[in-house]
Amino acid sequence: MSRLDAKDGPVGVFDSGIGGLTVLAEIQRMLPAEDLFYIGDTARVPYGGKSPETVLRYSREISKLLLDRGAKAVVAACNTASALAVPQLATELSVPVIGVVEPGARAAVAATRNRHAGVIGTRATIASRAYESAIRAADPRVHVVSAACPLLVPLAEEGWFDEPETLHIARRYLAPLVADGIDTLVLGCTHYPLLAKCLAKAVGPGVTLVNSAQNCALALARTLERFSLAKPLTPHRKSTTTAAFTDEPGNFLQVALDALALRLDRLEHVPLND
Amino acid sequence: MSRLDAKDGPVGVFDSGIGGLTVLAEIQRMLPAEDLFYIGDTARVPYGGKSPETVLRYSREISKLLLDRGAKAVVAACNTASALAVPQLATELSVPVIGVVEPGARAAVAATRNRHAGVIGTRATIASRAYESAIRAADPRVHVVSAACPLLVPLAEEGWFDEPETLHIARRYLAPLVADGIDTLVLGCTHYPLLAKCLAKAVGPGVTLVNSAQNCALALARTLERFSLAKPLTPHRKSTTTAAFTDEPGNFLQVALDALALRLDRLEHVPLND
Repeated sequence: MSRLDAKDGPVGVFDSGIGGLTVLAEIQRMLPAEDLFYIGDTARVPYGGKSPETVLRYSREISKLLLDRGAKAVVAACNTASALAVPQLATELSVPVIGVVEPGARAAVAATRNRHAGVIGTRATIASRAYESAIRAADPRVHVVSAACPLLVPLAEEGWFDEPETLHIARRYLAPLVADGIDTLVLGCTHYPLLAKCLAKAVGPGVTLVNSAQNCALALARTLERFSLAKPLTPHRKSTTTAAFTDEPGNFLQVALDALALRLDRLEHVPLND
Repeated sequence: MSRLDAKDGPVGVFDSGIGGLTVLAEIQRMLPAEDLFYIGDTARVPYGGKSPETVLRYSREISKLLLDRGAKAVVAACNTASALAVPQLATELSVPVIGVVEPGARAAVAATRNRHAGVIGTRATIASRAYESAIRAADPRVHVVSAACPLLVPLAEEGWFDEPETLHIARRYLAPLVADGIDTLVLGCTHYPLLAKCLAKAVGPGVTLVNSAQNCALALARTLERFSLAKPLTPHRKSTTTAAFTDEPGNFLQVALDALALRLDRLEHVPLND
């Protein structure tokens, strides 16, 4: 394949389900010239509670489906897959692989002034200590405290973005981190940007929120530049965003589309052979 | 296989994950002579948001694994699988198949005095209208109102059985049903018996809660009698309860075991070929 051909492929993005659409929306905003192909593995969602071997196997299968569509780069828009599969996929795939953990960790290090950062995520992401390791690798002087917040994803999927019940629960989860003195909070789950307003209220104005979705899109933009894979903006060509799911996308798709102002040009079903 | 051999097999019980342990606990209590073999499909949990075809395919695969273990009856301890797969499985399998929907529906009809029953469950169970159909089939004069309560499963899995946040959310979900005048509420999800205290507070003393897990165990006991498959209680034989999972059982297993006073004699891993 010539360099020109490689540039023509879409950026492949995957998640266990719908949460990664927050990342897709940021990429669409930041890189309007790129075609995007998203796969949500809704037949096996969520990856959060599954074993590292299972998450790696699922991530490998979905990445293969993206390469079959000619993807020139693969974005794991899923914190669990980023934590448990991206390092391995990066050695196996023939294209660049970008996760959400590293970019989020680097942004947290840049944002904290008192070198005291908090990380929230699903139980699996927090147990993996992936953000902690990535933050420490970027700056060993930064102190990290973390909290698993298993109820925030279902609250986001219910569309209760800024309800009193969500604020109650967010406060209960975040109080120990705030008491600990963090000045920066990493939203270590792709669903959480949808709850940003509520989370900001729960931590108060002194704490900066780090949005992994935004930082992942930025890391992708830099990677495409570095590998000469970025598509130039051409006046008469409209880019296309396709979303495919391994099972029904479910009720949350519409909730997310409305909240994210994401443009989907095509919706597909991709069958799995399990 | 002779009749005597058939009696010797375990009762097979399955669920998409851990929720079905509430049913397993009721069966263990009601039928202490029976060996029980439980499979939780934690590699693909939850079934709730998946399509009817996918739920049937998964249920068929797990039932096959139970028959491989010599199961003399199969209990779908999962409302989604009961609603979407039990009617089909009952025609395909060589052993009796019992779900949770029918027994719960019959118990609701027996319990209601004002012929006005409420049903709560996951989004998929409520959308399937399975309880509504089963209640109407048992007594067409009973008026049914239902509500999907997607946050109750994650609240139960967090172990927040009787917390103020859980009561808040339960009240928000249940207020329209109470206002509608129900005198009976079917807990149409295997996780909900864990929240029974909170749900009882949310609906008030005038409403009877119908526990699907209990009624399913009762239906199993009757079915085993009817097919001469019940094992007699023998003084020197201890029955065995085994739980197997297709992936890690996860944090909620311990939460459920503590809450249910369920005795597990063996824990296994059963691999899937997906």
